[in-house]
Amino acid sequence: MTNTRIESAWDRHWRPVRTFCLIAAAVVATIAFGDQPGNDETPIGPKWWPSEWGADDQRGAANRMTADKVLEANKLIREGKVYQLGRVYEEGMPLPGGRHFVLTIPGSPTHPAQGKNGIVAFDELLTAEIGQVGTQLDGLAHVGVRMKDDDYFYNGFKRSEFATAKGHTKLGIENVGVFYTRGILLDVARIRKVDRLPGGYVITANDLQACLDDAGLKIRPGDVVLIRTGHGQLWMKDNKAFVENEPGIGMQAAQFLSRQKVTVIGSDNWAIEVVPPEDKDRPFPVHQWNLVRHGIYLLEIMDLEELAKDKVYEFAFIFSPLRLKGATGSPGNPIAVK
Amino acid sequence: MTNTRIESAWDRHWRPVRTFCLIAAAVVATIAFGDQPGNDETPIGPKWWPSEWGADDQRGAANRMTADKVLEANKLIREGKVYQLGRVYEEGMPLPGGRHFVLTIPGSPTHPAQGKNGIVAFDELLTAEIGQVGTQLDGLAHVGVRMKDDDYFYNGFKRSEFATAKGHTKLGIENVGVFYTRGILLDVARIRKVDRLPGGYVITANDLQACLDDAGLKIRPGDVVLIRTGHGQLWMKDNKAFVENEPGIGMQAAQFLSRQKVTVIGSDNWAIEVVPPEDKDRPFPVHQWNLVRHGIYLLEIMDLEELAKDKVYEFAFIFSPLRLKGATGSPGNPIAVK
Amino acid sequence: MTNTRIESAWDRHWRPVRTFCLIAAAVVATIAFGDQPGNDETPIGPKWWPSEWGADDQRGAANRMTADKVLEANKLIREGKVYQLGRVYEEGMPLPGGRHFVLTIPGSPTHPAQGKNGIVAFDELLTAEIGQVGTQLDGLAHVGVRMKDDDYFYNGFKRSEFATAKGHTKLGIENVGVFYTRGILLDVARIRKVDRLPGGYVITANDLQACLDDAGLKIRPGDVVLIRTGHGQLWMKDNKAFVENEPGIGMQAAQFLSRQKVTVIGSDNWAIEVVPPEDKDRPFPVHQWNLVRHGIYLLEIMDLEELAKDKVYEFAFIFSPLRLKGATGSPGNPIAVK
Amino acid sequence: MTNTRIESAWDRHWRPVRTFCLIAAAVVATIAFGDQPGNDETPIGPKWWPSEWGADDQRGAANRMTADKVLEANKLIREGKVYQLGRVYEEGMPLPGGRHFVLTIPGSPTHPAQGKNGIVAFDELLTAEIGQVGTQLDGLAHVGVRMKDDDYFYNGFKRSEFATAKGHTKLGIENVGVFYTRGILLDVARIRKVDRLPGGYVITANDLQACLDDAGLKIRPGDVVLIRTGHGQLWMKDNKAFVENEPGIGMQAAQFLSRQKVTVIGSDNWAIEVVPPEDKDRPFPVHQWNLVRHGIYLLEIMDLEELAKDKVYEFAFIFSPLRLKGATGSPGNPIAVK
Repeated sequence: MTNTRIESAWDRHWRPVRTFCLIAAAVVATIAFGDQPGNDETPIGPKWWPSEWGADDQRGAANRMTADKVLEANKLIREGKVYQLGRVYEEGMPLPGGRHFVLTIPGSPTHPAQGKNGIVAFDELLTAEIGQVGTQLDGLAHVGVRMKDDDYFYNGFKRSEFATAKGHTKLGIENVGVFYTRGILLDVARIRKVDRLPGGYVITANDLQACLDDAGLKIRPGDVVLIRTGHGQLWMKDNKAFVENEPGIGMQAAQFLSRQKVTVIGSDNWAIEVVPPEDKDRPFPVHQWNLVRHGIYLLEIMDLEELAKDKVYEFAFIFSPLRLKGATGSPGNPIAVK
Repeated sequence: MTNTRIESAWDRHWRPVRTFCLIAAAVVATIAFGDQPGNDETPIGPKWWPSEWGADDQRGAANRMTADKVLEANKLIREGKVYQLGRVYEEGMPLPGGRHFVLTIPGSPTHPAQGKNGIVAFDELLTAEIGQVGTQLDGLAHVGVRMKDDDYFYNGFKRSEFATAKGHTKLGIENVGVFYTRGILLDVARIRKVDRLPGGYVITANDLQACLDDAGLKIRPGDVVLIRTGHGQLWMKDNKAFVENEPGIGMQAAQFLSRQKVTVIGSDNWAIEVVPPEDKDRPFPVHQWNLVRHGIYLLEIMDLEELAKDKVYEFAFIFSPLRLKGATGSPGNPIAVK
Repeated sequence: MTNTRIESAWDRHWRPVRTFCLIAAAVVATIAFGDQPGNDETPIGPKWWPSEWGADDQRGAANRMTADKVLEANKLIREGKVYQLGRVYEEGMPLPGGRHFVLTIPGSPTHPAQGKNGIVAFDELLTAEIGQVGTQLDGLAHVGVRMKDDDYFYNGFKRSEFATAKGHTKLGIENVGVFYTRGILLDVARIRKVDRLPGGYVITANDLQACLDDAGLKIRPGDVVLIRTGHGQLWMKDNKAFVENEPGIGMQAAQFLSRQKVTVIGSDNWAIEVVPPEDKDRPFPVHQWNLVRHGIYLLEIMDLEELAKDKVYEFAFIFSPLRLKGATGSPGNPIAVK
Repeated sequence: MTNTRIESAWDRHWRPVRTFCLIAAAVVATIAFGDQPGNDETPIGPKWWPSEWGADDQRGAANRMTADKVLEANKLIREGKVYQLGRVYEEGMPLPGGRHFVLTIPGSPTHPAQGKNGIVAFDELLTAEIGQVGTQLDGLAHVGVRMKDDDYFYNGFKRSEFATAKGHTKLGIENVGVFYTRGILLDVARIRKVDRLPGGYVITANDLQACLDDAGLKIRPGDVVLIRTGHGQLWMKDNKAFVENEPGIGMQAAQFLSRQKVTVIGSDNWAIEVVPPEDKDRPFPVHQWNLVRHGIYLLEIMDLEELAKDKVYEFAFIFSPLRLKGATGSPGNPIAVK
């Protein structure tokens, strides 16, 4: 989907030329920086990759959301039971990344009493990195790659071209749309017979496959895959332990998922991927792999406990991010329905 | 649902006593302040009303959300087409009520380049009355009634008992849960054969009934009713006109809807109800009627244009508010699915 | 000084009556609550005291600022050397009281390049309890006393009468004016022959008198008295130790200073007074003693190291608080000039 | 003054080399971009200029603040009368540049009642572009010049080298120190016999000289010069007119002042300089001239009415900016004392 606000007739006329130039640039960049697009085994390094959805694409794997996926998901709803997968946002919650959450309500009504009906009203005031605190969807404007001349994001969009003080003019979370699709829960903690995987545990493709086999399920393109590590049990119980490290997927598991064309990877930890990283010189490689290379979204800090307790491994997954113009992510309360 | 954080064994033990006392207090208050609970025709005035869901209830009409409503809604999904009903949040949007929306992204990455993979990351910083700007769900902690000794909210919860600087300890939006139910669109502008109802137009029960008759539909308990006035077409086109007044329901239409036990009333204007009000000495009476008396939620500043254009009058309505602890409302991007 | 914004001709006409009523109310309150105004030895408790500057006064000890004090201070300037007594405000500084300091600069210019001169401009965005973080002057709207019916502040102004969501309509820091007066440094750490008084050390009137005697100085009405404990050396060195307790004046030393009619008490700690308090059931009594009873301002988290090293015990003290309407305090960079 | 936090022994060792390189770079840049340093008549364009205080300097004209200037200013204090030159900060004030000012006080005490003394306390929460709203000192990190490869600021410091999400690591307002110096008021409105110069009026060197002649004064190096246009009378009276344009100095008057080596130029308008600009293709050239080329500070939105009414044209000027680390400016309440 193109950003309609800034697209003119001129833009449309020259799009084929621009597309050609972008591809040519990608080729040149590939040669110059040693990138091998399409080679999933390439180690993460300073590079970017062209999108499979065309040179103008800003939505990435959200393009896999179709009416058919809605109907496929819908058939999974048999009981009408709804699970809230979002955490409560509150002051005192863990804030990995040095972020903030300041919510204040004036105790004297924000709008003082008026009229014979004596109406009063309160508003809350929030200051927060709203798309990057608590339960959060990382969008495609969140993470990029520093190259020689600029920072590159999904589909080769460059920081110098889209970053403004009021929000990014490309890849903003308002482009994403709605996730209404089949959801899969992979309870790795259970399959590995622990309450909680230890911090630093690298979840492998084998771990994920074992969960699938156990549940008799296969991942299909466009699915949302939620991975339970048990780490979420530390939330608001031992916040220090929650943020200092985490179990999570490694690069191999990330490739296992991207090859199967998922749309969103969610987890009950704060970064989806294992911390500290497998290669200490390459922090957060799974973020780059998913967000920059594949346009796959990450949904962090989920509450998967009730779903896991009920052993609900296949369900309708529904999440409609806030349409925050130019934002890097969105808070939310995603749901699973069975 | 009780607020589990502050409920102790002691509370549970004394709850029946407390419930009795609250009811007694309600009776006394009723006598003292001349309230006639249960009489829907009573003019709005400084009073409060006990909840039909018990003295501890903090969820109001959200109690009407059941598995049956999910299944009923689900049957309305035949094509898998999803409509986004939330507006884009952006600086420059109309902010009725003197509110703020300040979103900033540091253009130098919030998290500077690190590692051989050269990862960079951006966060946005938002300051806003987050539950009361743009598309917004008014919760039960938003509006109250000034009485002699205190401000009273839904179910008689009093400001002096729940208002803290960090959020309300009662009626916060985190108590609401998820709306997954049957949705009805009443396109009053269309039925009255105008593009846009003029500011100050009082929508009546007759207007609503005419829409229902035209579509061959009946409202059922637990439904969400969305009312299209056409006023939303002014959004980001003529912001001054958008905020200075609006067409909306009057008290009679509000009673028509509450009698039919709806859960949420939504609209494409900014206050659901007509502005200026029918009785100039009683501003925003429909807010009190719904939020304080009936626990019915209001969903303001919706984008109903595409739904109306496609003449989708019955659909699955899904909205999962942010679980902002102690907040008065929630932003969101509700969806209709057909 | 009255709040000119809300004073009408009607107000002026009735002011004598109002003054009489306020005094009568004070007498009644005094009888009802057992207060003994004028008795400096009264233990701090839930009470308030009428101001010595009249029933309308909102400035307290700032009334002691006169042209004569300016000239008196001015004579102390002989070398023209200026000492900055304010700390640097920065993220990561200690924030006693659970406060926040979030400063962000968009790295892409807030105001993008324009014109042939290629002008760019940056703004910073700050969210903070601006009057109550870092070096800060506590104003008269900061601290009050909970009584049966309301919270009472300096001069009997009541919360229910002045607290609004946009700031206090009485006692706001914009009423204070400028402090340009004689300053006295009492280096208690030095006189007690330690680098730093330990947390919990109660500074007594004897400690203060010993400093005065050593320097051959006397306190005069309207002076600003700065008390060095050495605690400030922990700032940004051991922030945990800085906030967990502190040496500071006790009630006896507070009375010693208020009897001598000082205008401001400053210190290098974060609350002026000893923490934990002398009476564990009465937290922060010196705040009430000074702010509520005497209208004496408190200037916290000062940098007194260089002044102490140079043994400058008498100087011109100049501080001009931000005129933040309705705020409880002001940040600042007060100076001493010798 | 160097930024001590990031200066190492290594830095000190190599500073002469670095200085040489910077000067060499400046020469190259001068040749490449056609700049003629030292030629005051050069039209403003995309260029930068080396500082007269050395390649490491971050303070600019604040280097002119000396003990001698303090003593010179001090002799001007004869009556002890203090004038507050700062405006009140309040919601609803004009905010040129699309900025924000959101101040909220929770009406329920931020710190609830505790202890037998029933202490309560309030904090305010502010969100604002704190250094760029209301009365404000523009620092050297505020305005720069877009050149081919980067944005250049005072003394050639480059955006890519100092801009971080948490504030600028060079030229932050915390480097400025205190202004205690001789102040001069030039009442151009009075000398031109109008209440208020019209928006767009270009103040010339002749206008300024006429004021000086009338008062029998000469500007000396290190002085602060305040220019009264009368535009400040619109503040909070006609905010729309206040921001839409303004009378102010043109480039010729700016050169007249920089040649006389002033430290700060202040005014009762919002940009010091005339708006719209003399050359419509070069917006805010006086900002670049002063901040980027000469390191002269700008003090905007002052209240000069009382000073002008009393015809106080020579006085002690004192202003101590907030030490906000990495900020582009500072709010304040500067004072004049006679």
